[in-house]
Amino acid sequence: MNKNQLKILISTIALVCSMNSWAQDDPARVRHIFETSLTDGMSYAWLDHLSNKIGGRLSGSENAERAVMYTKSELEKMGLDKVWLQPVMVPKWERGEAEKGHISNSDGSKKDINICALGGSVPTPAAGLTAGVVEVNGIEELKGLPQERVKGKIIFFNRPLEKKLINTFEAYGGCVDQRYSGAMEAGRLGASGVIVRSMNLRIDDYPHTGSMTYGDLPVEQRIPSAAISTRDAEYLSRQLKSDPDLSLYLWQNCRQMEDVESHNVIGEITGSEYPEQYILVGGHLDSWDLGDGSHDDGAGVVQSMEVLRLLKETGIRPKRSIRVVLFMNEENGLRGGKKYAEEANKSGERHVFALESDSGGFTPRGFSFDCSDEDFARIEAWKPLFEPYLIHYFEKGGSGADIGPLKADGIVLAGLMPDSQRYFDYHHASNDTFDAVNRRELELGAATMASLVYLVDAYGTVATSNQPIKD
Amino acid sequence: MNKNQLKILISTIALVCSMNSWAQDDPARVRHIFETSLTDGMSYAWLDHLSNKIGGRLSGSENAERAVMYTKSELEKMGLDKVWLQPVMVPKWERGEAEKGHISNSDGSKKDINICALGGSVPTPAAGLTAGVVEVNGIEELKGLPQERVKGKIIFFNRPLEKKLINTFEAYGGCVDQRYSGAMEAGRLGASGVIVRSMNLRIDDYPHTGSMTYGDLPVEQRIPSAAISTRDAEYLSRQLKSDPDLSLYLWQNCRQMEDVESHNVIGEITGSEYPEQYILVGGHLDSWDLGDGSHDDGAGVVQSMEVLRLLKETGIRPKRSIRVVLFMNEENGLRGGKKYAEEANKSGERHVFALESDSGGFTPRGFSFDCSDEDFARIEAWKPLFEPYLIHYFEKGGSGADIGPLKADGIVLAGLMPDSQRYFDYHHASNDTFDAVNRRELELGAATMASLVYLVDAYGTVATSNQPIKD
Repeated sequence: MNKNQLKILISTIALVCSMNSWAQDDPARVRHIFETSLTDGMSYAWLDHLSNKIGGRLSGSENAERAVMYTKSELEKMGLDKVWLQPVMVPKWERGEAEKGHISNSDGSKKDINICALGGSVPTPAAGLTAGVVEVNGIEELKGLPQERVKGKIIFFNRPLEKKLINTFEAYGGCVDQRYSGAMEAGRLGASGVIVRSMNLRIDDYPHTGSMTYGDLPVEQRIPSAAISTRDAEYLSRQLKSDPDLSLYLWQNCRQMEDVESHNVIGEITGSEYPEQYILVGGHLDSWDLGDGSHDDGAGVVQSMEVLRLLKETGIRPKRSIRVVLFMNEENGLRGGKKYAEEANKSGERHVFALESDSGGFTPRGFSFDCSDEDFARIEAWKPLFEPYLIHYFEKGGSGADIGPLKADGIVLAGLMPDSQRYFDYHHASNDTFDAVNRRELELGAATMASLVYLVDAYGTVATSNQPIKD
Repeated sequence: MNKNQLKILISTIALVCSMNSWAQDDPARVRHIFETSLTDGMSYAWLDHLSNKIGGRLSGSENAERAVMYTKSELEKMGLDKVWLQPVMVPKWERGEAEKGHISNSDGSKKDINICALGGSVPTPAAGLTAGVVEVNGIEELKGLPQERVKGKIIFFNRPLEKKLINTFEAYGGCVDQRYSGAMEAGRLGASGVIVRSMNLRIDDYPHTGSMTYGDLPVEQRIPSAAISTRDAEYLSRQLKSDPDLSLYLWQNCRQMEDVESHNVIGEITGSEYPEQYILVGGHLDSWDLGDGSHDDGAGVVQSMEVLRLLKETGIRPKRSIRVVLFMNEENGLRGGKKYAEEANKSGERHVFALESDSGGFTPRGFSFDCSDEDFARIEAWKPLFEPYLIHYFEKGGSGADIGPLKADGIVLAGLMPDSQRYFDYHHASNDTFDAVNRRELELGAATMASLVYLVDAYGTVATSNQPIKD
């Protein structure tokens, strides 16, 4: 057998394997979904409103409530079978006035630095905090320092994201413990404050906020923590080498308030054959407060809404119930995701598939699946349907934070995987704004999601399949 | 045989097929190339200089000559075996002062519009050109109009790029005849001027220039032609429906001058085993004058330079001669590409492979190949080596304009295929600037190119293979 013969054999076998994985008109249906999104989509106009008419939507803020009302109203216009709000108590933290920071060198010179409080941080004293700086490359190094080296100091976490990694989310995952737990660990050791290098691969001037925790640390050990831009982190690190006795001044007046009531926004097309089986698609409506949250996660919100609209527009009548859920409070509490799962369990709703978009509105490359090998093989057989749209990435892995609490045997969880190279340039920073989103990239993502939802609805998962794949 | 058994069989066959397509250490070599580009790359710093220190590099301009000297000097610093300039005569066209245009509505109201002269256009009369407007959706519609409808009018070519197409270059290809030949066809029919909807999928305010021709039209029939921004094109089209008698004012004082001498910039690593076989990698050094040509084609220039640097940095000693060629005058004449091929033919140089990067510095997706089926099958067998870097697109198709003149039996021509969604937002417009390029996306492209060049050098093409694939 020569190589060409082998190729023909492989193609034939692959064809046979996939033949009963989809119907003859599925390629045309998928094309219809993509073309409708690109020529007649609503996702970009919705994002324009969320970003430019509302803006940053931190949990508990007035903007977050405006976003709840706006998206509910838009879902109602779509003629879904049901639209409702699900109450959920959320934390309320406010940044206060713009933070200030500067480096005081031993020679008396000063340099202002770009900082922002991390979400959930306590404020500095009203007069600000001034202290010497100890740079560490992570929590492990901090823990190895003698106590007198840490006491009263500002700990500077400066381990950068690993540039070698192709998937930037892996680079983020390898560093974000500094932001999340740095202040807790440093506070426990008697430090007076923490600054963390922004979780950003690019050298630029934007400080990137994000969630942090004090765990169960006593109140008196809770110290202020802020992010510093990557450019200023590089400067400070260089400066410390020649002037280890320099001091840093930080000022922020953020505050944590009582929890307030907010809402998940939910819309549903009730299934025509298996209404008791739920397919969920969602993103999170809250965002950080620095930009307008266009990529994180305005994009995921409008793409999820668009999935239901595209199904309707292209004449698909789902067999199963399709829900869009716009979760509240992913960023600093995950209260919406937890609440939704809690209520679903309480009422015994059977979720068979959940897809989240929370990785930015960039060109979609595929999906990551958290499911059994059998379910994955079943879904992977649909891969050729996506090839004309350059969707090529189908891998097992994580899904999304908001849908995580739904995890259970038999349910397939999935996350849209857009191209990740630019995501952390904008993530949680003031440049995460509408102009950073390309309309076509956003629309391609919505169509990619809608196509997968269509297929899962049509053919079910392993647990629910109405059309088993022959062995 | 069940589905899992079939899958194993397929994998095994695929493995056997590909086993002798690469060596055991090739995955590590490719990884080394990617990691070096991402952690220690030069492409971004070179692009910074080309874009921010030099700027737009229209053929025949002072900037184009500065770019020639700068890139030659950088190639010399790399310690290549040879670096030289290849003289080539190029056209010289100058835009002159900023163009002006406005719509005069029948009710006396006026609206300024964003226009720019197309490259090679004649100027308007010194007092400007004022005429009624006839909108057409392309050259065919123009040709079908009665002569009296065209005579003295400004023809407005307004067929937009097709949004449904996933590859935006196809959308461009379906419209660019309006820009290239519109003025020639309209001038032949007695029109007084032409405006063309910018070749851009987005609705925005940037007019996009580009090449045009008058063919062999007599001088007196050559009419001025300009691009109009997509937003103003939409406005004008709407306005014409309610006010067909509105008039348009255009003013531009561009001019065509005598040809001048310029240069292709060439660097070479001479092959250790087959120095008489040439592998070429290149982009074009000239750009349009409106932006700084960062995507078109500063990116391709610095990526091509980086290919040779990455080979050296990662300790690869090529068997064949590897040339980087920075072509002059791709945009409005292709003189550099033609000259290079002419000289190569004259001196009997045997080119076996040529790769061009001229589709923007966006996340690379793969390559398009212009070659025989046998060569394509041979290269496609390397696809798994690229998978860790999310490079998935290997298709037969076009390659690049500058390397086109090298086309001959047995040579493999290829083009880098980056993600295309954003390219035409910047193409030939004043926003094609350094800040529109993401460092990692640029560096991934350079590494993708270097990896393919490494493999072609190591294993040859069908015509030159030193390690034939078994049948």
